[in-house]
Order: sequence, then C-alpha cells, then structure tokens
Amino acid sequence: MEYTFSSKIATVKPSAIREILKMSSDPSVISLAAGNPAPDAFPVKEVEKITADILREDPILALQYSVTEGYPALRDTLRTFARNRYDVMGAEDDLIVVSGAQQGLELSCKCLCNEGDTMLCEDPSFVGALNAFRSYNVHLAGIPVEEDGLSIEALEKALKEQKNVKLLYTIPNFQNPSGATMSWEKRQRVYELCRQYNVMILEDNPYGDLRFEGESVPAIKTLDEEGRVIYCGSFSKILSPGLRVGFVVANEAVLQKLVVAKQCADVHTSILSQLICLRFLNDYDVEAHIGRLCEIYRRKSALMLGEMQKHFSPEVRTIRPQGGLFIWCTLPQGSDMLEFCRRAVADYKVAVVPGTAFTAKEDAPTTSFRLNFSTPTDENIVRGIEILGRLTHEFIR
Amino acid sequence: MEYTFSSKIATVKPSAIREILKMSSDPSVISLAAGNPAPDAFPVKEVEKITADILREDPILALQYSVTEGYPALRDTLRTFARNRYDVMGAEDDLIVVSGAQQGLELSCKCLCNEGDTMLCEDPSFVGALNAFRSYNVHLAGIPVEEDGLSIEALEKALKEQKNVKLLYTIPNFQNPSGATMSWEKRQRVYELCRQYNVMILEDNPYGDLRFEGESVPAIKTLDEEGRVIYCGSFSKILSPGLRVGFVVANEAVLQKLVVAKQCADVHTSILSQLICLRFLNDYDVEAHIGRLCEIYRRKSALMLGEMQKHFSPEVRTIRPQGGLFIWCTLPQGSDMLEFCRRAVADYKVAVVPGTAFTAKEDAPTTSFRLNFSTPTDENIVRGIEILGRLTHEFIR
Repeated sequence: MEYTFSSKIATVKPSAIREILKMSSDPSVISLAAGNPAPDAFPVKEVEKITADILREDPILALQYSVTEGYPALRDTLRTFARNRYDVMGAEDDLIVVSGAQQGLELSCKCLCNEGDTMLCEDPSFVGALNAFRSYNVHLAGIPVEEDGLSIEALEKALKEQKNVKLLYTIPNFQNPSGATMSWEKRQRVYELCRQYNVMILEDNPYGDLRFEGESVPAIKTLDEEGRVIYCGSFSKILSPGLRVGFVVANEAVLQKLVVAKQCADVHTSILSQLICLRFLNDYDVEAHIGRLCEIYRRKSALMLGEMQKHFSPEVRTIRPQGGLFIWCTLPQGSDMLEFCRRAVADYKVAVVPGTAFTAKEDAPTTSFRLNFSTPTDENIVRGIEILGRLTHEFIR
Repeated sequence: MEYTFSSKIATVKPSAIREILKMSSDPSVISLAAGNPAPDAFPVKEVEKITADILREDPILALQYSVTEGYPALRDTLRTFARNRYDVMGAEDDLIVVSGAQQGLELSCKCLCNEGDTMLCEDPSFVGALNAFRSYNVHLAGIPVEEDGLSIEALEKALKEQKNVKLLYTIPNFQNPSGATMSWEKRQRVYELCRQYNVMILEDNPYGDLRFEGESVPAIKTLDEEGRVIYCGSFSKILSPGLRVGFVVANEAVLQKLVVAKQCADVHTSILSQLICLRFLNDYDVEAHIGRLCEIYRRKSALMLGEMQKHFSPEVRTIRPQGGLFIWCTLPQGSDMLEFCRRAVADYKVAVVPGTAFTAKEDAPTTSFRLNFSTPTDENIVRGIEILGRLTHEFIR
C-alpha cells in the first residue's frame, strides 16, 4: 500500500553518521567517525559484581514495573550528585531519570515547542538532538560556534529577529562536534540574554566530566534563579551508554510535564539499568573512576593532536579540545569537504564525519569535518592520522 | 517564571491509575488496581545466570552503544519467534526492537498522524496508549467494546463519518481493561473494513501469550497482505516489564520511519536488557515458561471470579476473561461509579481503577471499574473481593 507519513517524521533523515559508520564496518577501514567511549573506559568488573548482587538480593525489584520519574533511591543519590558535583540543583528544582540524555532533549522539545516554533542551537551541533527537534516540526536557527562557545552577537541577533523562540539548545562543555568550551563570560551573557528575551535554555552536558585540560567552568544552570534552564546529564560517558540512563534537572512544573511525556514514551527507564547506576554511584569511588577516564582521553587526544601536527597540512585549522571525545577540523575556504570525506573512506580507508551532518540547516555548506579519538585504538589513531595527513596535502594545493 | 507548554502536552493528564496507585501505597490498602505480572511469574534464577554469563563473556558489548534497530541477533531470534509463534511476519515485513511495546505505540502514532488526525480506538482502552496518542494532538474516536471485541457497526459508522482517520488501535486479546477477546470473525471484518477505508491498524498484543482458557485466535496481522498492520509485541508479560523490551513487526517502509523516530527518542533500547531477552529465548524452554505463567494466571483469575460469585451483588456484570490480567466489572446503569471507587479505597481500603480512566473521551461517564488478579496475593484477592462485595451490596439497592 501507499503510506502517508506525518509531516513531522517525513523530513527527518537517518543520521548521516550512521551511513558513514555502515561503510566503516568494513574491517579494513579505520574509523575516526564514531563517538563511543573507549572500550577500556568501562568499569567491567564493578558492573559484573553490582549486577550479580542486585539480581541475587533484589530480583523482583529489578524485573518488575517501576515508576516513571525514576527509582526513588537513584533520584535521591543523583540529587546529591547533581548538587555536589555540578551545583545545578536550584531551590525549586527537582530531578528525574530518563532513558539517556537523548530522551531528556526530545521530551523537552515535545513539552515546550509547538510545530513551527523556533529553537536556537549552536551551529554545528549534535545531530541526534537536531533530528529530535526536527521530528517535532520545530524551526532550527543556528548560532555559529567560536573557540570560546557560541557567538553572542549572533545569539542576540537571532533572539531579536526570530519569531516564537522557545528554547536555546547548547552543549557548553567540549561541544559535539566542535570540541569548543563556552567561557564563563559567555555563559553569563547567554543566561542574561535568554532572560531578557524570555527564552528557556536546554543545557546538555554529556561530556562535562571528561575534562582533561584547563579549569572547570560552572554550568549555565548554576546561574538559574527562576527555573529557566533545563539541565540534561548522562551516565553514557562516565559509566555506560548501553544501559541508557540519563537525568534531567529542572523546575518542578517543567518536570511534571516531562514525566507525563515520558510515561507516554516508555513508561519508565530500565530498572535494572537504574539499579546498576545507583550501586555504582553509592559503592564505588566515582571521582577516582572519572579521573581514570580523563587520563585515558587526555592521552588519546594528545596522541591524535600530536600526529596531526606531524602529518596534517598546516592549512587545516582545528579547535584544541579541553575535554570530551572530538576534534573539529576545518579545510581552507572553498575546499570540497564532502569530496575529501568521500575520498578518505573510499580511497584511503579512513572514515571521518563530514561537517554537513551537524549543520542547523541540513546540508548547509561547510568545509569542516569531525574526528573522534576515544573509540579507535592508539595504533589506529597513528595510522589513520598519517593516512589522512597525506590526503590533506594532496587535497589542499 | 511563567511556563508556556506545548498544546500537545498541556492537555495530557497523568494517568488516573497512578493517582489511585499512590493511595494504594498505603500498606493497609489492598490494591486490585495494578497491572503488574505476579511476582512469582519472573524467571529469577534464569535471569541471574544469563546476566552473569553476559557480563563475564561479553561485557563491552553489553555496556557500549548499540544500533537503533535492535541487536542483530535478537532481531533474528525474534523474527523466528514472531513467525513461528504468532505467524505475524509477512513477506515484506521486518522487525525492530523497542523500549517496551509502549514505545512502539507512541512512535507509530508520531510517524503516521499529524495533529488533528483521527485515531479510532476501543472504548474503553489502555490509558497508556490513549495518553500517548493524545500527546500528539490526535483526535480519538472510541468504538464500544462487546464481549467478542469491538462493535463492528460502530467501527463502520466511525470509518464513514470521521475525518482523516489514520489508524485503528486495538488490543484483540484479553483487552485492557475489558478483558474481552475479539472473535476471529470480527478480526476478519476489522481488517476488511480498514482496507476498504484505507486505514492502518495498530495491533497491540501484550497479553496474547497469557491465554488460560479457550482456543487461541490468530492475530489480525496474520490477515495482512499489504503492510496495513503494525504489530506490537512485548517481553513485559512473559519475561519482565522492568527490562523495557518490546518489538514491532511492520512493512519495511513503516519500520524505516519508526527507526528514525526511535533514534530521536532514545538512540537504542538498553543493550543489556536486549541481551538478557536474547539468551532467555535461545537458552530456555520459553513454551514451558509461558505454560507455567498461564497456570498462575488461570488459578488467580479463577480464585477472583469464584470469590466474586460468592460475595458480589448479582447486579454487577462482568466479562469473563480467557487470559490476561484483568476483570472488568459494570455497576447497574445510573450508579455513581466514581463514588463507589472512592468509598472502596477511602472507607474499605480496597483500591480498584474507575472506568473513566480508560474512556476515549476523557472522563466520559461509565459505571465500570477494573480489577486486577495478577498482582495481589491469593490472600488479598480473597479479602479484597469479600470487602468489595459488601460494598456492592450496600451500594446497589
């Protein structure tokens, strides 16, 4: 039969990264295209012990239906974690558990935006979030990203000119894909401007714990005195993405709506996953674990940057990340970046993600591409960057 | 600050059942209001062993990101399961894994309905599904449920009169809340009528395996030759609801859209949960396990029906379920059912769910309420029904 799909979903395309990743499943391809935690970053022994304990001590709890807001003891522990580690629990805020921060982003858009409303987002930005917003027929207006975070001038202009702006979506720490970190000054300006124009802020902080350089900058949420900021956190980078557990901190009135939407979406997050996260936070030294992760990523990032220094054409510009998983590279103006990425994977067997995957306006022209240093082995970082370096010299003449 | 929520979510209320369940968390209240599997229905030892094996043999797989469509080996096993056990895999159909059947329902509505489109649903029907549809501003038109399934006359009338009908939502087996099972004749008529009016069918079968009486009736999906039926299955009743794993069988073109929507929603379903389901299907005698579950529910249902026979006013009408978890009771016309339910919990300390929770038009008048026999202990079934019986006699004069 002929299908008629909703206008919401008809225009959303599967993530371009997925297509690249399909090509990179060819074992002869070195993939610098993923965004996965390093395999050695998982606390395997700890999770094995925790899970055995849960299923021996509390099997019915782990298998039965649970409540939409999240397992009460996990919410308690996370409230303390969010308060002590990130200082993001305002006096009228509360916290719910979601099925990965992705769900927090999607539900926030669903609850706050009507079709045709505008969301502002960093440009480039995380394609998974942009697609979630697109899937509600929201108009995305992009704000260019600079080395110290989004352009304040462009933000102010957009707030003035765009109609029905409901939310600003931002990843202030080690942004995906640019790797940029927003300065404290800019965070304050962003908050002030959004207050001035009465726009809410959706602050996504999946990589915040993975700082391996420089001084930590407080979240925008720490400035929030009126429930303007929805803060999304995640276990995906500090424990496991496969378990699908994240959390949202927001004003109680906003959370009530998110809970209604979450109940419609998946009833509740896997309770076994939640119990694993709970015991991990309670029974292990999470600070030490995060320190170990930062060490892994500091080393891998330095390795990739060092190899790039040796092999890349000096005309390729990069933003040096202070944390996270990505290095953003920009070819000289006028370069055919898509052809570069195509040749990289087809002729040189190295997969990178073309910057077009991340633009607010789909497939807008850009000469940038994204490298990932967390997933590949050290050996593949060295080989991949050397090969890619040859292509940069060949490509830029 | 003052919040403006989307029109989609502004009108959806938290499930009335949740409010009742909150009252019934008072330990002195006997709850006949839930819909959880019986605690002794969980294969605790099996899950304990399976999970230990997974985390010892394949920890990185269980903790790392996975693909949106579902873990490939689980999809393979489920394709065979769906084909052999339910005969629902058409020649052009495929199968994806979702985070509980609830997600399959929500994403189907999102992908197929624009705001203002009409969905037909059984009336009464599962409130979780109805709320998911409401959260997309879909107009719900209810079709009354009879002992042998929805009214064909009412369905034909609605198909003729309603505008922009996109989907019919139905639970043909042991429907929630009515317990009714749709006859084979009606299933054929439903399919023919939907074909005639070019409406798709969303067939939800969470309870289908829990038949403890009568002959099994093939799914509507078995009649589907043109990709008209989206079939949602679940592990919630046969393995565990807490793991949040379900599946959707549909035409490949429909699944492609569902996958895009699922990627936006939660990236993928907990991979640890998926691996547990996979090993359970592959390594254990699932038929024997389901047989054991049916035995539990046959006994508990017979116990409740027997006690009702002894204690209830004969003016309370019921539909005798052939499976599932629920018994639907209807007070005589003109009864104040809400007052009955209020007094049941407040004065008699027995919680039941008022029928208003399940009406297509929210809070439409009804004199029915729902009883659940799977969650309470045998002792609480006996005590609860005796107490409730006294109230029926007092109430109906």
